[in-house]
Amino acid sequence: MSAKETEIDRPKDSISQVTILGLGLLGGSVAKSLRRQPSPPKIVAWARSEATAKRLASLDWIDQVTTSLEEACAAADVVVVASPVSQTAGLAIQAAEVSPSHALITDVGSTKATIVDEVERTSSAAARFVGAHPIAGSEKSGAEHAIETLFDGKLTVLTPTETTDPAFLGRARRFWESVGCRVIEMAADLHDAHLAAVSHVPHLAASLIAIRTPTSALPLVGSGWRDMTRLAAGDVEMWTAIVRENRSAILESLGGLSAELSRMTHMIQSGDDTSLALWLAEARDRKLRGE
Amino acid sequence: MSAKETEIDRPKDSISQVTILGLGLLGGSVAKSLRRQPSPPKIVAWARSEATAKRLASLDWIDQVTTSLEEACAAADVVVVASPVSQTAGLAIQAAEVSPSHALITDVGSTKATIVDEVERTSSAAARFVGAHPIAGSEKSGAEHAIETLFDGKLTVLTPTETTDPAFLGRARRFWESVGCRVIEMAADLHDAHLAAVSHVPHLAASLIAIRTPTSALPLVGSGWRDMTRLAAGDVEMWTAIVRENRSAILESLGGLSAELSRMTHMIQSGDDTSLALWLAEARDRKLRGE
Repeated sequence: MSAKETEIDRPKDSISQVTILGLGLLGGSVAKSLRRQPSPPKIVAWARSEATAKRLASLDWIDQVTTSLEEACAAADVVVVASPVSQTAGLAIQAAEVSPSHALITDVGSTKATIVDEVERTSSAAARFVGAHPIAGSEKSGAEHAIETLFDGKLTVLTPTETTDPAFLGRARRFWESVGCRVIEMAADLHDAHLAAVSHVPHLAASLIAIRTPTSALPLVGSGWRDMTRLAAGDVEMWTAIVRENRSAILESLGGLSAELSRMTHMIQSGDDTSLALWLAEARDRKLRGE
Repeated sequence: MSAKETEIDRPKDSISQVTILGLGLLGGSVAKSLRRQPSPPKIVAWARSEATAKRLASLDWIDQVTTSLEEACAAADVVVVASPVSQTAGLAIQAAEVSPSHALITDVGSTKATIVDEVERTSSAAARFVGAHPIAGSEKSGAEHAIETLFDGKLTVLTPTETTDPAFLGRARRFWESVGCRVIEMAADLHDAHLAAVSHVPHLAASLIAIRTPTSALPLVGSGWRDMTRLAAGDVEMWTAIVRENRSAILESLGGLSAELSRMTHMIQSGDDTSLALWLAEARDRKLRGE
């Protein structure tokens, strides 16, 4: 089926092909999730390198693998950019140039403002790009660890702007719902501030706890330490990129954390156990409200 | 069987009765674990209040419940003090006065130096008290949540002193192994410094992350935040007591954490992504070595 036929013959919401740019844990899980449908779309994966393309070709739940962006996008109804966040905007803009004009372009990046701002500056891409952040993941990476139920019941945040075409926003909502997600909309910068608090700073705090654990104390770690530091096992390159993309929101959140740490340390230092108990109770309450 | 018969008739390592002072999650799990033995010992639980005793009497895996410390300890071969850490030393000293002279006295407290120091000052209790910290737990509390496999394969740290009778140390080792644990020995103050790093400060950090999460961001939390803050759901009273008992080691560890937080924040602020990546890699390595 050529791109032209696709445009003419089918209503926009009928999805015959989904192209995934950068097939890792998230992109792979999108693919596996879509394959559960009664009539699943054709899944095409684009990889930057021949070596990766070769590796991905062995996965039997991918219909086609290519290193040509043109070939990957020519007949796409939906393009999902699932690359590291630093490459997302660039790939989304390129995908807009080589995909049919009805194709929705969306992504999975866990930071949004930088990506959305960059795509907005290219008018041809802006109207049909709908930034998305499906909040699901694993400390594992790579398409080999993809999970078909990864997104089931999880939240996807869409970050449309004034430039976003409402029809494409509706399609993005239905696409992410079809993957298994609940969908909400939020301004990109509010998303980034919230994500700094609920994800990026917790990740850095997990790394802090891990790096501050003396080697000689490691035999004493229990399940608490293991849960608490799980995030610290995450992919270093990916997290460095996330910090780069969301630097200002992360710094603001780290400033608040540092002030709170001083406040708590002072309670312990001064032996003010009443205040400490109230503080622990407030933290406990906040924790339980987040469950 | 009277305490006297017990002393005369049986070799010290034959355990006919284990008395647990303060039956919560840990004491209850010790009891349930012991009941898996082919010929389990009689399990006696002591509770401070009539109300608690009444509640515990309904548990079919406890043989006897009493509010009389004398009655609870009169025929004990092993007394396990499983109360909040602030009451542990006092109960261990009282138990030494009302139990047979062959009875081993041990505990489950997650702080050790304060407890061990206080018991050492009472010579009658010192020789047969062996401080123990089985490193296992749950954010749940109460005997109703006790788990028979809680200690299987987990580490118990024994903190003997120069005053500890080697025979009682050997018995303590065998007792905790019979509960399912691996056993190591360590000086009480080194234990406390290590536990501040692997348990107490991680707990406080989990509370910090929870309390710093804006209410409006709670719908966006994912599995990372949930794991990271799990400890913050712990019992407030118990954790206030742990901080009180291990204040100086916790303050020292918090000081190190604060300095590391500043160092990391500076890397992010200055855009030094190379150093940040190295730092994340070091934290990742430490995390993986603790698995």
